[in-house]
Amino acid sequence: MSKIVILTGIPGSGKTSILTESVALLNRERKKTVSVNFGDVMFDTSGVAHRDEMRKLPQEKQIENQKKAAEKIARMAKKENVIVDTHCTIKTPSGYLCGLPEWVLKNIKPNVIVLVEAEPSEIKGRRDSDESRKRDEESADDIDAHQKLNRAAAISYCMLTGATMKIIKNRDSYLLDAVKELAGLF
Amino acid sequence: MSKIVILTGIPGSGKTSILTESVALLNRERKKTVSVNFGDVMFDTSGVAHRDEMRKLPQEKQIENQKKAAEKIARMAKKENVIVDTHCTIKTPSGYLCGLPEWVLKNIKPNVIVLVEAEPSEIKGRRDSDESRKRDEESADDIDAHQKLNRAAAISYCMLTGATMKIIKNRDSYLLDAVKELAGLF
Amino acid sequence: MSKIVILTGIPGSGKTSILTESVALLNRERKKTVSVNFGDVMFDTSGVAHRDEMRKLPQEKQIENQKKAAEKIARMAKKENVIVDTHCTIKTPSGYLCGLPEWVLKNIKPNVIVLVEAEPSEIKGRRDSDESRKRDEESADDIDAHQKLNRAAAISYCMLTGATMKIIKNRDSYLLDAVKELAGLF
Repeated sequence: MSKIVILTGIPGSGKTSILTESVALLNRERKKTVSVNFGDVMFDTSGVAHRDEMRKLPQEKQIENQKKAAEKIARMAKKENVIVDTHCTIKTPSGYLCGLPEWVLKNIKPNVIVLVEAEPSEIKGRRDSDESRKRDEESADDIDAHQKLNRAAAISYCMLTGATMKIIKNRDSYLLDAVKELAGLF
Repeated sequence: MSKIVILTGIPGSGKTSILTESVALLNRERKKTVSVNFGDVMFDTSGVAHRDEMRKLPQEKQIENQKKAAEKIARMAKKENVIVDTHCTIKTPSGYLCGLPEWVLKNIKPNVIVLVEAEPSEIKGRRDSDESRKRDEESADDIDAHQKLNRAAAISYCMLTGATMKIIKNRDSYLLDAVKELAGLF
Repeated sequence: MSKIVILTGIPGSGKTSILTESVALLNRERKKTVSVNFGDVMFDTSGVAHRDEMRKLPQEKQIENQKKAAEKIARMAKKENVIVDTHCTIKTPSGYLCGLPEWVLKNIKPNVIVLVEAEPSEIKGRRDSDESRKRDEESADDIDAHQKLNRAAAISYCMLTGATMKIIKNRDSYLLDAVKELAGLF
């Protein structure tokens, strides 16, 4: 039976590399798997012309869009494995925002929620060397606090859904181990 | 549009000072804001003559009162900003009690849940010098554990409501920074 | 009025010893108390012939069984105190699984959720000396992480139910203190 795995990780965790490699590995192994970005699905189903419009919609409309996106993903998973690329919590000027509020979780019905984690110092190093993205300067302590908070958020997500919460450590030079761990969930 | 911010912080965090100063600041800036204490609203709506009676009511009645108080606060917020003064979790002889159970959260529908935090040693110092209140002696480790638990509780609250979770650090001699951070949420 | 206390603790926490001694103590004190193992109740109500079959049932059927077991426990607690022996979260190959998902919690309606905790080094020592059970080798850091995650899970459980979350420390040579703390909840 096909599965839905929600993949999360803070910027610099290496989530994207793991995702790309795992999908390739799974399909080589004939385990048909697609990855979708939650924000992209939301944009597609929202009917608005530009992404910026999405955030300006009234809150009820945004919740409506999130639900529709979640339902669409649940439908996709009837035919093949789906990895949902999203955030556990997002740091905003008003504080941490849950990437997976109740109405999203209960419509996606995930099997596993994955937290890709790395040492705060490694994350900092990756962010510093990544010139393509402008990222807020965060201290190793801030990064540590964010990762810890994500564990608390994720286990709450599991309480509502029955999903398991898998921590995948993505250490520098050990990407393949992380890729195998993610692929091993299917 | 007006907002509801839930303000929490353990005894000695300096929550009350921040609250008073922020409400004054916001009203000077013509952002009409009131603060309400959740326990007070509950007492007002409960119809009982004394506070002690409230805790002796059967559990269903207490839940009923909590819901009514939450609905009343939600109605207030249609006209002006509301800061709700309450606790994230409360230490009782039977263990930690959630200040914001599901039925309260879903009726208040807060925009932001604020945790006022401070260094455990600073909190301990403030408690020791505050002779007006009798407070249980807690070690810095106990204080640290309580603050960490509150983060986990708060992010669960956000999962159910879509609120953001804002951590405001209230260091000794930096009260004004904390006040500005709270006022900045409106 | 009788109470329902959910008792959790990771392998090596000493949960079972505390449970046995507390039930004996409470009954000596004429506070009628029974203990039930959640897995056993589920097996009894499931109608399957062997435990292994239970895990192979389709997910909806498993959820159904969990609900039935929770309702049965809630009914038992109308006549006498019940201590429910179960897990806060369970480590599985697919990650941590919540022992108390929403549909279990809302049907049991517990008064208190207890976490029996111990120093990671003590837990490790107890596991090493327990030859009767085959347990996965976990480092003290892994044990620490699991106990921290359980606190986050437990406080989420409290948010949905209004239960309190009680941490009982079970240090080597201080079993009686832990027993008294558990019994003191009734």
